Amino acid sequence: MYRAPVDEIAHVLKHVAGLGKAIEDGRFGDLSEDLVDAILAEAGRFASEEIAPINEIGDREGATLKDAEVTTATGWKKLYRDWIGGGWNALTGPEEFGGQGLPTLLSVAAFEMWNSGSLAFAIGPTLTIGAVEALEKHASEELQQTYLEKLVSGEWTGTMNLTEPQAGSDLAALKSRAERRDDGTYRIFGQKIFITYGEHDLTDNIVHLVLARLPDAPAGTRGISLFLVPKFMVDDDGSLGARNDVFCASLEHKLGIHGSPTCVMIYGDGKFGDEPGAIGYLVGEENKGLACMFTMMNNARLHVGMQGVAVAEAAYQKALAYARERTQGKAAGHEGAGMSPIIEHPDVRRMLLTMKSLTAASRAISYCCAHAIDLARVSEGDEKTRWAERAGIWTPIAKAFSTDAGMDVASLGVQVHGGMGFIEETGAARFFRDARIAPIYEGTNGIQAIDLVTRKLPLSDGAAVAGLIAELREDAESVRASNSAELDGVADALTAALDDLEAATEWLGNALKDGRKDAALAGATPYLRLFGLAAGGALMARGAVRGGNDGGGTSRAALARFAALNLLPETAALRRVVTGGGDRLAEAASTALD
Amino acid sequence: MYRAPVDEIAHVLKHVAGLGKAIEDGRFGDLSEDLVDAILAEAGRFASEEIAPINEIGDREGATLKDAEVTTATGWKKLYRDWIGGGWNALTGPEEFGGQGLPTLLSVAAFEMWNSGSLAFAIGPTLTIGAVEALEKHASEELQQTYLEKLVSGEWTGTMNLTEPQAGSDLAALKSRAERRDDGTYRIFGQKIFITYGEHDLTDNIVHLVLARLPDAPAGTRGISLFLVPKFMVDDDGSLGARNDVFCASLEHKLGIHGSPTCVMIYGDGKFGDEPGAIGYLVGEENKGLACMFTMMNNARLHVGMQGVAVAEAAYQKALAYARERTQGKAAGHEGAGMSPIIEHPDVRRMLLTMKSLTAASRAISYCCAHAIDLARVSEGDEKTRWAERAGIWTPIAKAFSTDAGMDVASLGVQVHGGMGFIEETGAARFFRDARIAPIYEGTNGIQAIDLVTRKLPLSDGAAVAGLIAELREDAESVRASNSAELDGVADALTAALDDLEAATEWLGNALKDGRKDAALAGATPYLRLFGLAAGGALMARGAVRGGNDGGGTSRAALARFAALNLLPETAALRRVVTGGGDRLAEAASTALD
Repeated sequence: MYRAPVDEIAHVLKHVAGLGKAIEDGRFGDLSEDLVDAILAEAGRFASEEIAPINEIGDREGATLKDAEVTTATGWKKLYRDWIGGGWNALTGPEEFGGQGLPTLLSVAAFEMWNSGSLAFAIGPTLTIGAVEALEKHASEELQQTYLEKLVSGEWTGTMNLTEPQAGSDLAALKSRAERRDDGTYRIFGQKIFITYGEHDLTDNIVHLVLARLPDAPAGTRGISLFLVPKFMVDDDGSLGARNDVFCASLEHKLGIHGSPTCVMIYGDGKFGDEPGAIGYLVGEENKGLACMFTMMNNARLHVGMQGVAVAEAAYQKALAYARERTQGKAAGHEGAGMSPIIEHPDVRRMLLTMKSLTAASRAISYCCAHAIDLARVSEGDEKTRWAERAGIWTPIAKAFSTDAGMDVASLGVQVHGGMGFIEETGAARFFRDARIAPIYEGTNGIQAIDLVTRKLPLSDGAAVAGLIAELREDAESVRASNSAELDGVADALTAALDDLEAATEWLGNALKDGRKDAALAGATPYLRLFGLAAGGALMARGAVRGGNDGGGTSRAALARFAALNLLPETAALRRVVTGGGDRLAEAASTALD
Repeated sequence: MYRAPVDEIAHVLKHVAGLGKAIEDGRFGDLSEDLVDAILAEAGRFASEEIAPINEIGDREGATLKDAEVTTATGWKKLYRDWIGGGWNALTGPEEFGGQGLPTLLSVAAFEMWNSGSLAFAIGPTLTIGAVEALEKHASEELQQTYLEKLVSGEWTGTMNLTEPQAGSDLAALKSRAERRDDGTYRIFGQKIFITYGEHDLTDNIVHLVLARLPDAPAGTRGISLFLVPKFMVDDDGSLGARNDVFCASLEHKLGIHGSPTCVMIYGDGKFGDEPGAIGYLVGEENKGLACMFTMMNNARLHVGMQGVAVAEAAYQKALAYARERTQGKAAGHEGAGMSPIIEHPDVRRMLLTMKSLTAASRAISYCCAHAIDLARVSEGDEKTRWAERAGIWTPIAKAFSTDAGMDVASLGVQVHGGMGFIEETGAARFFRDARIAPIYEGTNGIQAIDLVTRKLPLSDGAAVAGLIAELREDAESVRASNSAELDGVADALTAALDDLEAATEWLGNALKDGRKDAALAGATPYLRLFGLAAGGALMARGAVRGGNDGGGTSRAALARFAALNLLPETAALRRVVTGGGDRLAEAASTALD
């Protein structure tokens, strides 16, 4: 069973992401390391003791739909009540509406543990918190007064309604429409698909954020507006009124995260209310909906990255326990009459060390991303820009690298279990199934790579990425300066990997400047992986060098060295692919794909 | 829906594996290319039209157990009857018992297509054919007379009973026991798990091949004997007699291949018969059972490799069709008002080309393996040894590289489908689930890598592997000599990859000679992948250079070039991992894994 790795998380957050120094510098008011530790410990306890035990039930029972009402699996309603009862939904919410206003980094760390407990459970609140951010930044004061407090506490949940059958990655194609009414409200019509927790029985009301087009809107993404559409109308005194004209028409039958209802939502079908049309309230300005939604999406992307880290950690723990317990064969040096625990076999060791390395690398990247978001919020001027750009660079890497890692680690976890891994009751296969969604939603990993190359590389004319690489080179130098025997060979490996990253970055930058966008796009996915590996390796080394007096230094050094010698060599290959592999790709595709 | 790639298969089989030349040289009697083409076409038709359409039913319904009887999914019984009715089970069987005595290569090619249609269906006959081989080589004439004809035709099926709860990869630990009876028969007692098609309703009888220990057997693998245990006893006239004391106690609930019943089999529980004990007949000699079983297992390993190729091909075809049909966004150079088919986006192209390359590489390797098995059978003396060694080298690579490829391709297939890929009805997730078993069974891929390094590298003191690498270098030279613009850069990429392979081989050879077995084992898995990539790349180039006048040459050249520039760079990284990554692995494991 999952045990929240609270100490490791605290270490990465303080010494790798930099929360320790930020607290010392007073960047987060009276936040103290002790409070951080207390929150992590309690969030971890909830994850291990309350969430994890119930995950299998959600997988087995799934959610069920009857007469447009969705029932979640046995125990989920109580779990959710207990979770919001602990104040967890309010961790980062605005204090004005009952939130605790804590840094995103803390929330992200807590969500890692809750997601390790159950991806299917934790994804719901992730969306609510995204809705809170969007409304806090873009909604009218009236909407905020009516909705924010209950969304912050988790008494109501939020959803994110973007996708339509013809509009997935390309939101320009969306067709849902909004009509203006004289009273300043709107009527929404259309069908949305893949709506996570679009309908459920955890709360009395659900607040949908919906993208739709006004009749006179320009074509494409510049004609999309964002609307708040409650499941039940809210009266002036805050009590619930009539059912709004929106309902769940069906649930998807998915590969994984069965506990999470994925809904087809129908707006304005006339099923409820006096006249057809779901009553909606404009959030932000007309036709500026996409910008508002991006507020949610950036945060959501990091949170999906955390799902990758989380499922990797949980799959690793399960495989490690099995490898210690299961005996087969005799490893070299094994003493005694019986068989060896399989963890003594070099190949199993390689699998487990790879799993732990990928988990550690993606955790470090994701926490750095969260910390950059936090520092951008509390900074001004150039510093704010620098941190915002840093967060912008980290976000697609945190999302894509971590979710690929989640999949790879979950797959290795099945492999470590051998035949038992393929049996559902073992639970390793569940991680493998659950992990598969994360590279897809909130912008496929391909979309993340394109975002990294076409939007983030050009930030400050390349200086933003150059600054990050320079910082990672300092980690390589710290390792070199440490003269640590435990880190033998790591500095050279890091320098080589960062050289590869720099060369690939330069090549892509030139390709973009020369108008060879297709060549740059062809290398986007291998480039993102190269970035993730090089940065992840450097951050793991940073973790080994810094704050080593908590007793984990030797262990972190050994892992950082394993990663440097076993995972980082791939960067040279990726560099070659980025700078040469895209050559004649279109030609190859038109000739060879049949 | 799957369409059997008959032309491509015929090309690889003739021009890459070398069947064309072998036929020309008269190595397979009166076998002609025309007959090969006719068999492939008809096997392909059966796969596409009969098997593929029914696969989803098997996945959804699975197999069900009631009162020790297993019922397969709707339509599977008819499908099996039609399949053996077409004579397909008898393709490679001995002519003396009604088989057609055709080369393994043809059978393997046909099984690729049947497995693309349905892994869960085709795995059953794979085991029967393995049983035929074991009995043909090791059973007494009496057993052969009683069982072979019906196993060759497929009127009865065969199973392979190795695994027990405590004995998976390590068969030395198995506990099932056999007692001698005065009439020369044995009584078998014990529990076997993970028995594929251990019980089903496709045929009237099932012939179990079971590993068990005699009371006076030495400990370990030298004390294991092989027994034939029929479900129903067979009377002298060939009719079925009493039920034997063996039954299916439960079915596993698996991640994939739901259509294939995976059974817990209980022997000698007293459920059937006058006295407890399943009646068994010795196959081969007492205590020499493992050698007999290995006859089955080597063939079975190649067949599992084919499952990897097969699921990759099917997943690729599905993703390709979707990428052509699904439109999102506008690709560079896209004309017209609407959105682009996603196949026009560079990142999707990369995914599809990667999928097709991995499929082609593992197909070529697997067919070369089958051809080596065939030539070993029809050769004598040194030539026989050379081909047997060649088959020995290819087998673990065909099994592990192809099944890893199957998984990677199936996962990319889900990704190409975006959100739809996560929905079970789409079918992409089914390939992803089904593919996951192949790296596990018939010896995990870790076991394959250990076999390659510790048993195959030392063959003929390293000359066997050196000979294969030399042959692959000839492919690089053919490309160079062709001066083909289509293959620009390929020769250099191949030479570099083969240099990496040679260097890693030498390093491992020295490590084994120096008694550093643990260091060699730590590099086994990356070494196998390095071997597969380098060899697969060379064989793809061979396919592009040879027999190019069938119209597919340009397409094969484009794919070989994509693979050379995009997949082969990884070999340099793998070489570094093999030669350096195992350093202090045990230390890292004991320090960092917690």
